[in-house]
This record gives sequence, C-alpha cells and structure tokens, in this order.
Amino acid sequence: MSQRQHYFAAGPAALPDSVKQQIQLDIREYGNSGLSILELGHRSAEFAIIIEQARQLLRSLYAIPDGFQILFMQAGATGQFDALPLNLLSNKPVMTYVDSGHWSRRAAEFAQKYGRVQMLSAVTENKTADGVVITARDRSDWDIAADSAYLHVTPNETIEGIQLADITDATVPVVADMTSCLLMRPINFEHYDLIYAGAQKTLGIAGVTVVIVREDLLQQAAEQTPYMLRYDVHAQEQSIVNTTPVFAVYCVLRMLQWLQAQGGLAPMLAAANERSALLYQAIDAQPLTCNKIAAELRSQINVSFDIDNEQRLQAFLLQAEAQGLLGLAGHRKQGGVRASMYNGTALSAVESLADMITAL
Amino acid sequence: MSQRQHYFAAGPAALPDSVKQQIQLDIREYGNSGLSILELGHRSAEFAIIIEQARQLLRSLYAIPDGFQILFMQAGATGQFDALPLNLLSNKPVMTYVDSGHWSRRAAEFAQKYGRVQMLSAVTENKTADGVVITARDRSDWDIAADSAYLHVTPNETIEGIQLADITDATVPVVADMTSCLLMRPINFEHYDLIYAGAQKTLGIAGVTVVIVREDLLQQAAEQTPYMLRYDVHAQEQSIVNTTPVFAVYCVLRMLQWLQAQGGLAPMLAAANERSALLYQAIDAQPLTCNKIAAELRSQINVSFDIDNEQRLQAFLLQAEAQGLLGLAGHRKQGGVRASMYNGTALSAVESLADMITAL
Repeated sequence: MSQRQHYFAAGPAALPDSVKQQIQLDIREYGNSGLSILELGHRSAEFAIIIEQARQLLRSLYAIPDGFQILFMQAGATGQFDALPLNLLSNKPVMTYVDSGHWSRRAAEFAQKYGRVQMLSAVTENKTADGVVITARDRSDWDIAADSAYLHVTPNETIEGIQLADITDATVPVVADMTSCLLMRPINFEHYDLIYAGAQKTLGIAGVTVVIVREDLLQQAAEQTPYMLRYDVHAQEQSIVNTTPVFAVYCVLRMLQWLQAQGGLAPMLAAANERSALLYQAIDAQPLTCNKIAAELRSQINVSFDIDNEQRLQAFLLQAEAQGLLGLAGHRKQGGVRASMYNGTALSAVESLADMITAL
Repeated sequence: MSQRQHYFAAGPAALPDSVKQQIQLDIREYGNSGLSILELGHRSAEFAIIIEQARQLLRSLYAIPDGFQILFMQAGATGQFDALPLNLLSNKPVMTYVDSGHWSRRAAEFAQKYGRVQMLSAVTENKTADGVVITARDRSDWDIAADSAYLHVTPNETIEGIQLADITDATVPVVADMTSCLLMRPINFEHYDLIYAGAQKTLGIAGVTVVIVREDLLQQAAEQTPYMLRYDVHAQEQSIVNTTPVFAVYCVLRMLQWLQAQGGLAPMLAAANERSALLYQAIDAQPLTCNKIAAELRSQINVSFDIDNEQRLQAFLLQAEAQGLLGLAGHRKQGGVRASMYNGTALSAVESLADMITAL
C-alpha cells in the first residue's frame, strides 16, 4: 500500500493498526502458552482469562450494573432475531417492535413465526417544498401493549442512516439491536433490559455476538429453543457451551483494550459527534448532494447521501477510491453513498471526504 | 519457544506452521485489497472468491458428487444437533441414532425435543479374564425403523477413542458428525447423505461449521426452524446469509490448500494409520498402560489410554510437557491420557510419545 487507506464500509469494519499488529504477534505465539492464539483451547487457563477479562472490561467501560449477564454467542444478530422470541416470549401474547428501517423490520419479520407482533412506527415522511424529509414520529401516540413480552428497538439503522433517541418510559422490557452502535457512546442501563450486537462493526470480527441481558429474563426459554440459542445455557456455562469461537472472543478483548486506552466511551461519542457534524455540514452545503433525514434522526455512525446523477455518483466513488477512501458505495438495497464511521475512523479521513463533497 | 512443541489436544487443534505464516501475512494485507483479511467484507469480490475456492477445493479433495451442496454455517456441531431434526424430520415419526459414545448420545438427546428417537448400540462391553474389552456390536440385529427420517452416526468418538466402520446398507438417509475426522480419509459418498463438522479440529479455527448435504434433503425444514439453522437458506444464499464469519471461512481455505499441497486424502489416511499403529503398539506392549477398545473399534485419531496409578499418570503428563508434548490430559469426563492426532500431527511427535510409554 503506497498511500494511507481509510475504510468506510458498514461492516466488517476497519481495525486499529495497533490491534492488527498485536494479533499478528499473538498468532505467532500467545503469551508463553507455546501455542498460537488460533490454536488455544476453549477450556484452557489462558482462554478462561481472555473471556473473563473481556467481560470485565465491557462491564467497566459501560458501567453495566449488577444483575446483568454478559454472554458471547454465535450466529450473529440474525441468530438473535430468532433467539429473542424463543427466549423471551414465554406465555405472553404479543411482542412489540419499533419500525425505524430495514433491520428493525427484518427483526420483526422473524418474530412473527412465534407469536403476534405489534409494530410501532418511529419515523414519518413529510412532503415539503424541497421534497421528502424524514422526521421522528411523536411517541406519545405509541400504545405499547401492556402484556407485550418486550419492546424491540434498533437504535441505529445502518442502511437508512437513522438513529433513534433512547426510549426512557417503557413499561415492558426494552431489547435493542446495537450491532452498529455498541460501545460508541455511554448507555444508561436503566433504559435497557437486553442489548445484543454482532462484533464485526465495533468489536472485532464476525463470528461472535455479544448479549448483555438482565438476569431475571434468563429463565423463560421455550422448550424447543435450540441449545445454542438459549440464554440460560450461555449464562450457566459462562459462554463456553461448545467450542467457543476463541479467536473472535480474543479479538473482542483486544478491541476493548484499545477502547480503554483511548479513554473509554466519552471520547468515542465526542469523536462521532465531530465526524458526523462535519460530514452533514458538507452534504447540506452542497446542492448536488442530498440527505433527507431530519437532524433529530440523523445517524452519527452511518451517513447515507445521494448525488444528483448516476454518472457523477460513479465518478465520485472512483475518485474516493483513488484517494484511498474505500467502501463508500451505498447498500445494495439503497444505492448512493454511505460513509460508515465506527470508533476507529480518523477525523482526517472524514475531512478528506467532506472536501470531496464540497468540491463536487 | 526453545524446543519444538507438539500439540495433542482434541481441538482446537494445531495448525501447520506454513498456514500460520500465511495468515499473518494476510492479516497485514490480503492480496492487493488494501485491507486486512480481518476487515474484508462478506460481500466483497475477494471473499466471493475465497468461499467459492473453499467449496471447489473441498469438492475436489473429497470427489463430492453433483447433487451435494456445501454449506458454511455457524454455531458448531452442537448447533447441528438441533438443525438436523429441524431440517430433516419433516412429517416422519422417528429419527434413528447409533450410540457409539458420548457425542452420539449428546446428539440423540437434542433430537428428543423434536420427536421420537430410536437408539441402536454400536459397541458392547465384554468381560474377559484380562478385564473389560469394548468390541463392535453385530449390526445384523439392528432393526432401523423403515419410516425413520434419518440414521445418525458419529464415525469417530473423541472421548472414548472409538471409530466406526461405514454403514453401507442403510435404507434411510445417513447423517454423520465428522467434526473430528473430516478430511482425514477418503469418503464414499454413496454411503452418506449429510456430513457435518465444526472446523476447529481439521479445518482451521472454531466459528464455522461445514455441512455437505444431498440437495433433495434441503427443502424439508420445519416452519419454526431459526433462520440461521436452515439448510435451504444457506444453500440459496451460498452461505452468505448474514455477516459470514469471513476469517474462519478463509482459514478453511488455507487448510484445504495445505491439504492439497500434501497430496490430498490418501496420504492423510496413510499417516493416520502409521501414527495410530505405532501408539497402540506401544500401549499394548506396556503392562502399565491400558486401552480397552478392541482393534476393530480403535480410533486412528483420538487414542485414549489409562496409566495404572494416578501418581504415575501425573508424572507422565508433566514429563510429556517438559519434552514439548502438550495437550495430552484426558477429557475431563474420562481422565487418563488422550493423544489427538489430526492431519498436522508429525510422526516424530508420536514416536516421542511412544518412546515415553515404552520407558514407563
């Protein structure tokens, strides 16, 4: 590589250089184990320390209260789309899903196999003189079923580039898919009962799914829940259920250590604020680019925008690549440009991108 | 590491040095992608080639006939314990499981959630003047239910160290857990309809599960099968269902390339024959060690044996470690010594171990 590359893909995401260097060393030999980290046993003393350190660091970075368990599961957030109703529906008649875009609808679709799903809309399209604007819907008209097993939210929608404010007054357990926003800002755990996230965007590589769950939700799994999707089993076995994906959990630990060395979550939030403000400013100032999400809903993580015509879009993407700005093509369902900016994204890379937009 | 180490653990297993070196290079940058293999997108052109090459190499090494699909799934063989009945039971009244030891019984236990399970015993204990000997049971008294959805076998039991001969005359589909024996010998695909294996013993690292399945078994999944466990979905999406565990699949490819460079499966079988013959010979010749499995059932892969007293056993394990022979403690449910010898295990390491046994 002759020039510095910056990677804006939605995930798998870029890893910090220092983390990649450490991983290479640990592949040669992990500590004094005589083994590569790729060979380390899931029941070894070394791995017991790795997984426990990962749990402790996650707990400390997020200030996760007692009464929450941290699980490392498999099969990604998509696996959780089935695990949630299987583990949490119990004998309740309904589950409530907040519709904020593609991924929340996908989660709801899976839940329909298991029972009735109540949908609540989080966004609304407003036609204005300048075209459609997507704004946050007034939540006071939400009528969450009192006997709902849980309320599911997707706080950050990666395809549309929409970010929801916390739900602070729910009377049923709140479950959140944080695959694209885990560890990008502090969380008030009073507002959440279960958080889940695939690791490949903010916590390393694909192959492990973090689940942070209130202990009193653990014991409700339906009898036919597949073993590997059971929260109670993972809690009881401390996530060493079958051959744990050792390397993926190890990568989580390395990312958590990096995050701690950066000063934790407050600087992560500040950096996300700065990056996204810069980018939206450039998009709004440029008549040839358009993002139709209202300010209160704009994602600080995945910024999607259109360019006025296809030819200019393609030229823009080519020019970006030539400048070392990779992974900017929009999602295959959406088109346009998408800049995904996770914790490792340098402000300088966003400045280069903003300059390109301004120069259109 | 001052001396050459040899790793006899049951899995995760040792990787060849050349594979580990290649992985380190690809973590720095994969090809000319500008990215680390750890960052490569599951929908990138580069990964499309990786997963397709892995499929093609597996097909070519095993001579897998047309009409079989190769899937890369998640959640390990334990995930498959639920996936099998969910995908294959359909409206049949019963599933048949051959009991050969711990892992086959575990698979059967999971299946009981979904329907009636018929158990057939593969082994029998014979009391002789020298103590118990475990022999293969006569299969002519097996009465496989004609309306069984499938017959499940575990051709190699890692804990007991038992290996079964192929079932060549089954009248229902034969399903085999080959987690501990995949790619260690040629397979006649006329005798198998579905083969599954977690990758961490013979095909890289934990985090991906290979399923080789006859196409006409794909379309029978129960409606409530979790999406990530559906064979039809994985077949249709070519295993890029959610964020595929890119790195684990990439490791499969590197292991397959290594295997091809070694000359394929015939030399793997020859090496397993040689290693296991040497070890059993030493065990049988030494009055202080004991393996009670009859010759026709002895595993060529996982060789378990007892040492006459606990003090000698602990001294043996310590001495082995001092000589660089690691991972030899028996399974926590079994005790004793266990030498797991996968494709990468050097004959010289087995010779050292055999010498230690002889010198007891």
